[in-house]
Amino acid sequence: MSSPPRIGLLGGTGIEGKGLALRFAQAGALVVVGSRARERAAAVVQELNQRLGHESIHPAENREMLAQSDLVLLTVPFAQAADALDTYRNDFRHGLTLVDATVPVKSKTTPGPGDLPEGSGSQFLAKRLPEGVHLVGAFKTIPAHILAELEVPLDCDVFVCGDSEPDKARVMDAVRVIPGLRPVDVGGLDAAATLERMTALAIRINRRYKSKGARFRVVGI
Amino acid sequence: MSSPPRIGLLGGTGIEGKGLALRFAQAGALVVVGSRARERAAAVVQELNQRLGHESIHPAENREMLAQSDLVLLTVPFAQAADALDTYRNDFRHGLTLVDATVPVKSKTTPGPGDLPEGSGSQFLAKRLPEGVHLVGAFKTIPAHILAELEVPLDCDVFVCGDSEPDKARVMDAVRVIPGLRPVDVGGLDAAATLERMTALAIRINRRYKSKGARFRVVGI
Repeated sequence: MSSPPRIGLLGGTGIEGKGLALRFAQAGALVVVGSRARERAAAVVQELNQRLGHESIHPAENREMLAQSDLVLLTVPFAQAADALDTYRNDFRHGLTLVDATVPVKSKTTPGPGDLPEGSGSQFLAKRLPEGVHLVGAFKTIPAHILAELEVPLDCDVFVCGDSEPDKARVMDAVRVIPGLRPVDVGGLDAAATLERMTALAIRINRRYKSKGARFRVVGI
Repeated sequence: MSSPPRIGLLGGTGIEGKGLALRFAQAGALVVVGSRARERAAAVVQELNQRLGHESIHPAENREMLAQSDLVLLTVPFAQAADALDTYRNDFRHGLTLVDATVPVKSKTTPGPGDLPEGSGSQFLAKRLPEGVHLVGAFKTIPAHILAELEVPLDCDVFVCGDSEPDKARVMDAVRVIPGLRPVDVGGLDAAATLERMTALAIRINRRYKSKGARFRVVGI
């Protein structure tokens, strides 16, 4: 095994970013929480490191984070994702693997995956990236707040999709760093259309079963 | 617990029907395999009963089966499902619960769920039913040939969707008859759009992992 990758979170101060930062840091990865404002990142990181009991998460302004990270996870809400990509477009280094953990969950004011002409949020976002930056969909079906509950075993699968096999393999290796998560390769980026709907299905299941952490596991592979 | 329901299979001589017949009969349910031709049903039932070692599956022409069954499972291929519903339209008794186990898997010649203006195969089929017959989607994500391999523990969930709560409850009770299957209520019939895509995702996973039985389990409920 090589040394753990430096994981950067683009817009990492929300619930999704916090949860992933905690799980990766707990597993021994180097984590940089990026934010538009360094102070915002610093405040969140202080809270997270306190919960962990060590100082293994670092704060940064998003551009600083991009310069320091091997793998960058996009963890803003989907509604802000396109703007974030446009803002940092020139800061993505050639060859960067960008992990799309966002999900367009349909509401009165926001589109669902079926409302996007590209078919999914990931395909919509991929079109906005400069050449040489590859988007990989992952973590879409993992409930954010379960990530943040460190005492809860995750015990589920992370569906990983993307059109570049080497980038996908890199993301699958990163997923394996977190105990209780198994990466499952579901093919090209177009699979995001299904994964994003599965997130909406999990939200429905949570509502019916008065649960908060419905997530998926594949049996039989 | 009440006595097990009499399960009828509309077009039950294919791989899906055979697998469900075997699992329900093994669990002690009364099963009637329907076919357009009684002799075709009889030949298949002989094979199935031989595998089971008892005579608990019965053959019937589809109309006979419809007259004898509490719960009817539609197990023809999706491409033949609309024709089957049209053919037997006048034979569905008022109050019948019809279980749609079909999946429109996109190919060169057949539509996927996204190609149907109704959004899913189940919604497309529901529109063709006479009043008083309720469609419930179930068993869509369970690989047919795994059902037929009786020595394989199923160990997965059956997602159940439908717009009539009593009919859905009836189907969930039937699912509980089969060991290793847990019904998960995923709300209205529109959830079929997601379930049908999940079947396509499982087929993709099978291809990647050289497996045959990828199926799903919900963690956290």
